[in-house]
Amino acid sequence: MTADAFPFAERFASLRLARTESVGPVAFQHLVRRYGTARAALEALPDLARRAGRAPAIYSPEQAYAELTQGELMGAELLCAAEPAFPEALKAIDPPPPVIWALGDAALLQRRAVAIVGARVASAAGCRFARGLASELGAAGLAIASGLARGVDAAAHEGSLATGTVAVLGGGIGDVYPPENAALYRQIAERGCIVSESAPLRRAQAKDFPRRNRLISGLSLAVVVVEAELKSGSLITARLAAEQGREVLAVPGSPLDPRARGCNDLIRQGAAVCEGAEDVLRAIEPIRGFSAPPPPDYASTPDATPPELLERVFDLTSPTPVHIDELARLVGAPAGAVFAALVELSLAGRVELAPGGVALRT
Amino acid sequence: MTADAFPFAERFASLRLARTESVGPVAFQHLVRRYGTARAALEALPDLARRAGRAPAIYSPEQAYAELTQGELMGAELLCAAEPAFPEALKAIDPPPPVIWALGDAALLQRRAVAIVGARVASAAGCRFARGLASELGAAGLAIASGLARGVDAAAHEGSLATGTVAVLGGGIGDVYPPENAALYRQIAERGCIVSESAPLRRAQAKDFPRRNRLISGLSLAVVVVEAELKSGSLITARLAAEQGREVLAVPGSPLDPRARGCNDLIRQGAAVCEGAEDVLRAIEPIRGFSAPPPPDYASTPDATPPELLERVFDLTSPTPVHIDELARLVGAPAGAVFAALVELSLAGRVELAPGGVALRT
Repeated sequence: MTADAFPFAERFASLRLARTESVGPVAFQHLVRRYGTARAALEALPDLARRAGRAPAIYSPEQAYAELTQGELMGAELLCAAEPAFPEALKAIDPPPPVIWALGDAALLQRRAVAIVGARVASAAGCRFARGLASELGAAGLAIASGLARGVDAAAHEGSLATGTVAVLGGGIGDVYPPENAALYRQIAERGCIVSESAPLRRAQAKDFPRRNRLISGLSLAVVVVEAELKSGSLITARLAAEQGREVLAVPGSPLDPRARGCNDLIRQGAAVCEGAEDVLRAIEPIRGFSAPPPPDYASTPDATPPELLERVFDLTSPTPVHIDELARLVGAPAGAVFAALVELSLAGRVELAPGGVALRT
Repeated sequence: MTADAFPFAERFASLRLARTESVGPVAFQHLVRRYGTARAALEALPDLARRAGRAPAIYSPEQAYAELTQGELMGAELLCAAEPAFPEALKAIDPPPPVIWALGDAALLQRRAVAIVGARVASAAGCRFARGLASELGAAGLAIASGLARGVDAAAHEGSLATGTVAVLGGGIGDVYPPENAALYRQIAERGCIVSESAPLRRAQAKDFPRRNRLISGLSLAVVVVEAELKSGSLITARLAAEQGREVLAVPGSPLDPRARGCNDLIRQGAAVCEGAEDVLRAIEPIRGFSAPPPPDYASTPDATPPELLERVFDLTSPTPVHIDELARLVGAPAGAVFAALVELSLAGRVELAPGGVALRT
């Protein structure tokens, strides 16, 4: 279906552009808007990057073919942000993931979903709660998203296998981890959907998890945190969810249980109390669509940025993130031109673009 | 000390007026304001009540002497709302309790205090938490108030015996209940303070507990609820605390534990999350005094209300509580005159005055 609606050449170019070193989701979105298509952006890329300092290693056609073949052999589907079949929920996050792989029932990604995440080393009670909540929300017609980790994640998937469960992986869709979830992974691949932003055979690395977490919350109307210690990954997912305009709920627990600290702290910061499915349904009831603020659309021309503007913008960056509007004010140039300069600098690996319109020196 | 600063005759009259059938704290406060002293109010009472319908049984001088003797034999002290030594915190609630008995160190009632209340059938963890919290808050210089019930209350007193603990009883200060807390009662009488609004030998009845709870919250800057089922007495104390402008905190717990339901529900309604002493100290830190809204001071004359106004006001009351201002609007008379009429009707047992400026037909 998706292959018909979206030209193969554009899919191929999207994959190459997305996998190119130093092209993150922010630069990807900017370049495709600036040049109209991923193909045109890919063609402009070497020159743009060279002028800003250093040409990046572009994902070669051979690498892209190999990745497409791997994914297709596994029976998975590549979805591109620009194609109509791309999940609405992910289109609404800023910036959307440029490409994702989906193994199993990709239609699940279009269902209203709730994420249930939490501690890997969860208590029996925490797992039981997560399983029951997933099952009740599934019965109410919602898909459940989680991260296939041990503990709460696994319990959430188990509870929603029958009604619709989506596992988002940090590594590729073929990177089954942890080993004890191998049987669950196979069941989800058959009855639910396995999703990843990485290449199918990529092994997860630490830096993949924030992106994974951003997809989990991005796919969902609400994120429920069940058991989480302070400074745990689940709290990052909750923060990302809040930034994406999603509802955040947390399951309270005794102050004597360290696994309740993160949840209680979220509640203290304004997360809704979750004691069961009713609380979640009440929280998402008013949500009719995805209400993330629309990303700013900085106008820019396909022309490369004049070298002196590139360097003035670069000079103003530092390891402390600074907002594009602030930079534009400082250099006295339109925000669109400054954003274009930042993208070019990022392609050369000299600055990093982060979601929320900020840039920092790497 | 108090006997010097406050004439015995006024103390005696306060006790008689407070103990007179159908004189609640609202009528007590009104009558003393209207007639200047408790003595004058007591003299005016029979005539006022008779004109409104029926004269109440006034607490006789013999009864008052007997009560004073009982209390003094126990080594306790009677404190009257109008005397300077009356606890500041209780003076600030609307209306203050007309008289209280204090056994032990009454100076504790002037200390900044925090109430810790909760389930009678508490878990071991809940009791441990309450004991630890009381001890830490005690170390921070706060007195701890609670209700000497089983479970959380007892644990809170135990944790603060060394630093200052106040037990507020529903029955009289001599009504030791439950029996298993007898040893704790004796320790509090020696090292802390036992307080009650009832006569010293009165056995607690169900209707005494809301008054007891109002004193617990009234004595405190904040109320912490540790384990409470839905619809439990601790939640009433929390509601009274909120009405009195006190901070309300609740200790969260797992949704799988019924004893956490009441606390989680309080948090859902806006109570602060309490995971330890720090949360309490943070909540009360900005409080420099007792910030309950000042009670409206309806002006009125010592003259009895004209009979036709009495009856018009009575006709407008029903078992549904109605506010004095609403009644005043309906009868087209000043609120002060309507309030006076309501007090007179209450003395005759025909209406009941409740805190918050409302009246209902009994």
